Amino acid sequence: MNEIRIIPVEGIPEIKVGDNLAEITFDVLNKSEIGIEKNDIFIVTQKIVSKSEGMERDLSNYDFEELLQSESKKIIRKRGDLVIAKTRHGFICANAGIDRSNVKKNSALLLPEDPNKSADKFRKRFESLANLPIAVIISDTFGRAWRKGQVNFAIGSSGISPIDSYIGKLDSFDNELNATEIAVIDELASAAELVMKKTIDIPIAIIRGVDFKSSKLNANELIREDNEDFFL
Amino acid sequence: MNEIRIIPVEGIPEIKVGDNLAEITFDVLNKSEIGIEKNDIFIVTQKIVSKSEGMERDLSNYDFEELLQSESKKIIRKRGDLVIAKTRHGFICANAGIDRSNVKKNSALLLPEDPNKSADKFRKRFESLANLPIAVIISDTFGRAWRKGQVNFAIGSSGISPIDSYIGKLDSFDNELNATEIAVIDELASAAELVMKKTIDIPIAIIRGVDFKSSKLNANELIREDNEDFFL
Repeated sequence: MNEIRIIPVEGIPEIKVGDNLAEITFDVLNKSEIGIEKNDIFIVTQKIVSKSEGMERDLSNYDFEELLQSESKKIIRKRGDLVIAKTRHGFICANAGIDRSNVKKNSALLLPEDPNKSADKFRKRFESLANLPIAVIISDTFGRAWRKGQVNFAIGSSGISPIDSYIGKLDSFDNELNATEIAVIDELASAAELVMKKTIDIPIAIIRGVDFKSSKLNANELIREDNEDFFL
Repeated sequence: MNEIRIIPVEGIPEIKVGDNLAEITFDVLNKSEIGIEKNDIFIVTQKIVSKSEGMERDLSNYDFEELLQSESKKIIRKRGDLVIAKTRHGFICANAGIDRSNVKKNSALLLPEDPNKSADKFRKRFESLANLPIAVIISDTFGRAWRKGQVNFAIGSSGISPIDSYIGKLDSFDNELNATEIAVIDELASAAELVMKKTIDIPIAIIRGVDFKSSKLNANELIREDNEDFFL
């Protein structure tokens, strides 16, 4: 087992509607010492994906309550100002993922319409430029049930198996590992957050050295259906 | 922002009751190229901590149901064989954290009595040997509400602030970041899992290059009280 590196990508400019994130990242890396390696995993924050896809809403024109309703499939809990909702995609998070930090004052940023498609688009364009296979994860910061504090989760992915399954494999004592399915893309998203501090501008990190399985499956695999969920 | 390295510590022997994990790790690192650096963060899996602290139970002498009851403060959900319980410490997880993989056949491994104390003990002994400040996180792999798959969490810690708070700080648009408290020790535990695969023997990882705040607070800070929890 080799070491894994979490590399912040510095120098990504402020992103505007229509910007091609793969092309911008490729250009930044070409001028940087980081370079590009086969099987680099790119963790891209939701924020710049949403901005490039035109998901910013000026709150002079939109009502926050109406935005919240239209982004929510279901309101899960509501206490005072805090609304925990299930988004159209199936994520359970505060304010249906609508973000009011790191955007212009009096505006709000919605989640990408389809973060897996965003990840796919980034991966394909980047691979065609770099001529190397990569993987892409779109991340966002959510709270959790039962635990204080927030961590990064994978809301979209492309080119990497979302789960490492050990079902049926044997441990070092030859016991069968029955119940171990690691949500590896969530762990990668959390790892990337360590170099993506909130108040500075690191919207992309590369995780290098992971021996991952390529896959057509995406981050939707981690969404538990309502009827399988004990805690809804 | 510099890069962060996740380094697997290979060569830790099978751990027995009474083994001193800090001394064993120090010896292994002294013979390895990895070395020891100031502010290295050691992520130690619960499994070897529990083994060293004599928490393995032979199921010829103990009844699994009785163990489960004695380890649980509260049964949260029960469906068929699956029991989700709140442990004596306050963790919500399957089987109250009792583990039957990577132990001898027909035995079970309980969580450490006080994982923060275990982390403290490791840190103090290691620091006295290495003469450098470090931080320690004890990790375990749990499932989550709403999301499929398991990730690593911090069940104990010493020497590192468990939460990075951005409350009151300004983002790049001068908006105040109201609600951002990152559970950084959970993210570090998740990052370490990427080099601690279940079927091979990497019970310890070092995360190097993190600019963390030292603290007397520990992993208990991340446990949400029942009366503050929306999802119990």
